[in-house]
Amino acid sequence: MKNFKPYYAVIFTSTQTEDTKGYTKMAEKMEALAKQQKGYLGIESAKNEVGITVSYWESLKAIKNWKANTEHLLAQQKGREQWYNWYNVRICKVEREYEFLRKQES
Amino acid sequence: MKNFKPYYAVIFTSTQTEDTKGYTKMAEKMEALAKQQKGYLGIESAKNEVGITVSYWESLKAIKNWKANTEHLLAQQKGREQWYNWYNVRICKVEREYEFLRKQES
Repeated sequence: MKNFKPYYAVIFTSTQTEDTKGYTKMAEKMEALAKQQKGYLGIESAKNEVGITVSYWESLKAIKNWKANTEHLLAQQKGREQWYNWYNVRICKVEREYEFLRKQES
Repeated sequence: MKNFKPYYAVIFTSTQTEDTKGYTKMAEKMEALAKQQKGYLGIESAKNEVGITVSYWESLKAIKNWKANTEHLLAQQKGREQWYNWYNVRICKVEREYEFLRKQES
């Protein structure tokens, strides 16, 4: 892994309540807003019994700024009041990475 | 975050081929096998367009051992041959963590 520049991942795992009203719209809004933040690198999301959203950031500073974003703070509060039974947030340093990509069949 | 002991997360993201034969059985087998490994802490998984599996480990050594496990190596090979169009593996150090748990309504 030459020249690998460490970056950060926020692993957000959650289980939801049955009151999902407004959730999808807010999730879309927050994803769009995250993408506009300085230091944002990407986001991946999937949900079955547990929801997992991983967002990627250039630095801890970028994560801190995003966490403290005013609109995001309101969304977090609403999440605790209405949408989530449980969530866990892990701030991680990505130290290594590798990828597989299937060759196109001709 | 007093007394927080760092640990490691492996973020595995993937997209699958249409040939899913044998996949679910193998995924269950690998999850059961992972749980028996030294240093294993937990696993979380969800899949829609993208599949995300995050496994948690006490150390980089534990991750290395699991990656090199003979049965797991065979599963990885089969994954590249048959099940995955793409995957990405990120080895991460979990530096901080916080949790929300809804209070039970009485």
